[in-house]
Amino acid sequence: MTNLSDVLEHINADQENALQRLFDLLRIESISTDPAYNDSCTEAADWLVNDLNAIGFKASRRDTAGHPMVVAHTPNGTGPRMLFYGHYDVQPVDPLELWDSQPFAPALEDTAAGKVIRGRGAADDKGQLMTFVEACRAWKTITGELPANITILFEGEEESGSPSLVPFLEANADELRCDLALVCDTGMWNEKTPAICTMLRGMLGEEITITGADKDLHSGMFGGPAQNPIRIMARLLAGLHDESGKVTLPGFYDGVSPLPQQIAAQWRGLGFDATEFLRAVDLSVVAGETDHTALEQIWSRPTCEFNGINGGYTGDGFKTVLPARANCKISFRLVGEQDPLAIRQSFRHYIQSNLPADCSVEFEDHGAAPATVMSIDNPAFERARADLSTEWNTEAVYAGCGGSIPVVGYFSELLGMDSLMIGFGLDDDQIHSPNEKYNLTSFMKGTRSWARVLESLAKAS
Amino acid sequence: MTNLSDVLEHINADQENALQRLFDLLRIESISTDPAYNDSCTEAADWLVNDLNAIGFKASRRDTAGHPMVVAHTPNGTGPRMLFYGHYDVQPVDPLELWDSQPFAPALEDTAAGKVIRGRGAADDKGQLMTFVEACRAWKTITGELPANITILFEGEEESGSPSLVPFLEANADELRCDLALVCDTGMWNEKTPAICTMLRGMLGEEITITGADKDLHSGMFGGPAQNPIRIMARLLAGLHDESGKVTLPGFYDGVSPLPQQIAAQWRGLGFDATEFLRAVDLSVVAGETDHTALEQIWSRPTCEFNGINGGYTGDGFKTVLPARANCKISFRLVGEQDPLAIRQSFRHYIQSNLPADCSVEFEDHGAAPATVMSIDNPAFERARADLSTEWNTEAVYAGCGGSIPVVGYFSELLGMDSLMIGFGLDDDQIHSPNEKYNLTSFMKGTRSWARVLESLAKAS
Repeated sequence: MTNLSDVLEHINADQENALQRLFDLLRIESISTDPAYNDSCTEAADWLVNDLNAIGFKASRRDTAGHPMVVAHTPNGTGPRMLFYGHYDVQPVDPLELWDSQPFAPALEDTAAGKVIRGRGAADDKGQLMTFVEACRAWKTITGELPANITILFEGEEESGSPSLVPFLEANADELRCDLALVCDTGMWNEKTPAICTMLRGMLGEEITITGADKDLHSGMFGGPAQNPIRIMARLLAGLHDESGKVTLPGFYDGVSPLPQQIAAQWRGLGFDATEFLRAVDLSVVAGETDHTALEQIWSRPTCEFNGINGGYTGDGFKTVLPARANCKISFRLVGEQDPLAIRQSFRHYIQSNLPADCSVEFEDHGAAPATVMSIDNPAFERARADLSTEWNTEAVYAGCGGSIPVVGYFSELLGMDSLMIGFGLDDDQIHSPNEKYNLTSFMKGTRSWARVLESLAKAS
Repeated sequence: MTNLSDVLEHINADQENALQRLFDLLRIESISTDPAYNDSCTEAADWLVNDLNAIGFKASRRDTAGHPMVVAHTPNGTGPRMLFYGHYDVQPVDPLELWDSQPFAPALEDTAAGKVIRGRGAADDKGQLMTFVEACRAWKTITGELPANITILFEGEEESGSPSLVPFLEANADELRCDLALVCDTGMWNEKTPAICTMLRGMLGEEITITGADKDLHSGMFGGPAQNPIRIMARLLAGLHDESGKVTLPGFYDGVSPLPQQIAAQWRGLGFDATEFLRAVDLSVVAGETDHTALEQIWSRPTCEFNGINGGYTGDGFKTVLPARANCKISFRLVGEQDPLAIRQSFRHYIQSNLPADCSVEFEDHGAAPATVMSIDNPAFERARADLSTEWNTEAVYAGCGGSIPVVGYFSELLGMDSLMIGFGLDDDQIHSPNEKYNLTSFMKGTRSWARVLESLAKAS
């Protein structure tokens, strides 16, 4: 216990240096979805390789068909094997004009709610993954050794569908297979209450482009007898939900089970305030399925969302064009045993079979991952929950998570590992939005949490 | 008749010079809807002022709150007064990548269908207005005098809702009021058959921006209970038409009369081939109102078209954002006695009253003009039709026009003038689209047509 106390004390004392290291990483513009930032993604991977080598890991950059992976190992590690996963890539920053600061000029800011680390990736996921790296660094500094038998995997394509992940896991299964995966890409229940996420929604990403005429037309000359792809798109999108908020695709709810009574009761006990949750983003009415509460919807119900739409003239002023094309990006959040590929097929059939005969559609695949539900019978879960409760001085909870972390599914399917999902994000972190932040408390107590958890898990064997 | 023969001969002989003058005008990037091109609009106005002064008009640039007007008069003119109207502004050029040449580098091209003048504005409306200017120039060259008592009005905001036009007409009504307006902004029936347009659809332009949350949200964290403005937009747009293609807004068809039997019969006699019309733009199915033919729809039926839509993440790749906003530009083509302002009110009420309580909408007004129907009792119409028939060696027809030329309505309301709409555009001119062109035949025989019409109308008094 002496060592752990020293480690925790060192983490506090080293705060300024830890922040500077995180800022160095945050300054790298590693937007994975936009090819203009390819070099920055590689730069972020190299930065991590160097940092991990500096604290005693044997780390290397592993190139792929897309952005590189970073893999690191505790040299000559013994004891239970743990695979820590995070991602160094970030979301695009547009609309840039809504940022109050430069997204890649990170800074510590005083706010009414305390100090926050501001910048793209502060919470998703660079700040989070660095809590783990800093915990390892502190153990190494104090004891001269890394605290456990750790393998690290950082990917650079999490925000762009992870096209290289499955091939990489398959090709390096023996090297990466551990007793347990540790994933730091989720949130706390609230700013006082830590959480371990045990349910993740899956995701299906689709993009459709509907084409009518072979060029944009004059709406005066052709308006009426010529098809308008925006109108077709609106009709098709509007047909995807019924009046009760249910998705209308045939077979969509196959594999969606009712929430078990005891889980529903536990969630009700959390006292989630939907009105407050929505008020934070200037909304007030619970939308979505009318027969499910907001929390049930986010954690346990599938959705169909429209993420982006574009067609015709969208510049300043007005242009009476009848557009040749309309495009929409659509994501489905999936739960339980929903089959992403069956839903893709049902979706594409719906679109194709409802198109006018002289229009065409192109589909683009943006990934498909089923939902994941962890078993908490693995004693590592209760050990980690105890450590979190100690560090935050509040009983840690098991939670669901509305987001998708497909890697957790792949770890289960391809490497036979459960994932212990511990993260320190908060609902107001504005990930994927302008002005992303990560609370300084999340960063510091997150680091201290991992320092505790690593010791507990290493001891158990 | 000697003079006219000489004039026509001179027009043919001067073709190369006339083309170079038109190219000079086409090279000016006078896109009126985009403030980045303000200086170019002024440059185009100045170019026209200089050219008109050079051929004996008394011309001047008349500044407005927007782009300038050009006004010119025959010095000391006598006889019937004619007001010629055209516009020197052009549509935006995007998507630029679909142009096979630079839009503002005009050139004469050999095509399978003959020689064409290629470039933005070649047909709409610089090429058309120059047919009139060249006809005047030829008369002046041959006779030393302009051929009639002409006032010219060129505007630079026709493609951006003409905000300065009504105030300018009102402020200069005495100067601009003539016995008849001549407008060259319409088309031929086909490449052999000239036409005088006697019916124009009106237009109402609306833009709506629907806002839900105060920022883009993560669709995993908020998808379900939070409103999605793209989904709302799709539902609202889809609700604007019923299954038979009719617009559903209450009161929309007030003022739309059935087409008179004799006009319907005349139009059927034109042998319009809807399949061929659509095939030219790679379509094959007549869309729109199921109980009206394609030609009836274009010439005599109102429409509601979606001209541009935008919301959420529309860049490369994928972003699972739940967007804060969605925007759509919508135009209504109007006929008969439809009241644009009543329709605007009905439209806005529909949108507003179907929004979720925690979402808001902003409306932007992009102009409103009623439809126009000319009386062909004015003998100028039959005189001009005879001249056109002579020049083209084919009986000229009275036609409708699906487009909107609001100025014709203003001339009627504000200055008490009918408009004789003669133009030489063709359906395949790709106005408002990439690769706009104007047939060399349209330009040359158009010029010759005006040379004839001007003499006929000047003689009549």
